[in-house]
Amino acid sequence: MDRSNIKALLFDVFGTVVDWRGSLVRELRQFAKRNAIALDPERFADDWRALYDPQMAPIRAGTRAWTRLDALHRESLVPLLARHAISGLAEAEIDRLNTAWHRLDPWPDAVPGLWRLKRRFVLATCSNANTALIVNMARNAGLPWDAVLGAEPARAYKPQPEAYLGSADWLGLKPEQCLMVAAHNGDLEAAGPLGFHTAFVARPTEHGAGQERNLAPSRAWDIVVEDFHALAAALDC
Amino acid sequence: MDRSNIKALLFDVFGTVVDWRGSLVRELRQFAKRNAIALDPERFADDWRALYDPQMAPIRAGTRAWTRLDALHRESLVPLLARHAISGLAEAEIDRLNTAWHRLDPWPDAVPGLWRLKRRFVLATCSNANTALIVNMARNAGLPWDAVLGAEPARAYKPQPEAYLGSADWLGLKPEQCLMVAAHNGDLEAAGPLGFHTAFVARPTEHGAGQERNLAPSRAWDIVVEDFHALAAALDC
Repeated sequence: MDRSNIKALLFDVFGTVVDWRGSLVRELRQFAKRNAIALDPERFADDWRALYDPQMAPIRAGTRAWTRLDALHRESLVPLLARHAISGLAEAEIDRLNTAWHRLDPWPDAVPGLWRLKRRFVLATCSNANTALIVNMARNAGLPWDAVLGAEPARAYKPQPEAYLGSADWLGLKPEQCLMVAAHNGDLEAAGPLGFHTAFVARPTEHGAGQERNLAPSRAWDIVVEDFHALAAALDC
Repeated sequence: MDRSNIKALLFDVFGTVVDWRGSLVRELRQFAKRNAIALDPERFADDWRALYDPQMAPIRAGTRAWTRLDALHRESLVPLLARHAISGLAEAEIDRLNTAWHRLDPWPDAVPGLWRLKRRFVLATCSNANTALIVNMARNAGLPWDAVLGAEPARAYKPQPEAYLGSADWLGLKPEQCLMVAAHNGDLEAAGPLGFHTAFVARPTEHGAGQERNLAPSRAWDIVVEDFHALAAALDC
């Protein structure tokens, strides 16, 4: 791979940059305590996350109008609370729990790794999260993005090609000038054939101790590393 | 004015944050020297800038499809070079001059003022410049934006209401939770009636020593200051 033409790094965020599950579990414990509720936080977090892909399906298929992720999270949260036998919450408390996604913590290597990478490359998100979510998360976690791109600018959810291609285009770049960084083979399987360079960062505890998917690269990606320090080293930063 | 509900600051960029004229003059002098050309850099800069508003008019009117500012700058540059009797340049040299807009220098107070403001507020651009231009400028000048918004996300050029309203909406905010900051009364005359708080920052040399417009506020804006340090002080940062 000729890496000399890479100008920008595009990052998947949930799981790749931030530990969504560990952070949601923390937020759900606080929520349960605050409201004196019994709750299995790991199961609730997994259930909530599992609802996200089916929600995007009709939007990807074009049978539902573009809807941002904050709204999808809120839409799935209300029946999920009922399913977990939680009722009688004020709207503001539901909103507060819904914005737990804005307060996800980075993996320990993410912030120092990104600062190393930022010296040499444009750093942009290419996430299915909406802009406000990523902006608030970045301020909370200290993530030094140069641009927040991905689904909302493209009005398309990954793995739709528009989400990747739009991100490169908004940076004034071609796919071959961008490196897509993800902990998910599916992201790279979508971006690679479009001409993007590919980097797989293993996050073997994203789904907890029993994780079965994305433990190893599914193909010979251009870069395969264990964290963002190693990514920076691989890119001579 | 009740400022307690302000969550985000939206900034006009050309003239308000960066000294586009002084920076273009510097770039044009380098360009002239590099190509052994005689050139009046102040006049060239003013001529180039003057072409930008007429170019946006048909896009604002809906008679021309959305076109980003980098392309408009390039489109106006070619005949402008001819008008200044400059010919025989390589395409790459024209491209290099066109991206002078990506290398504009901030006013001296801009970077330290923004860092003070960033501690408390989301900082976003609300500019007619496209994303790549603002991203490259920010990296070059050290401008710590949380989000790059404005014309390109909205696909509408200020003072079209969509450019302001879309920027607030992408941040998940209402206009009354945002403060529009500009050195141009016209920007505030557009944003204020939409519900935005308004701050006028005087930049009396934006157009050079003989500047006649925007020397003083045209209305009683919520905040009127001489630079970003004073803006930070006015907002208790």
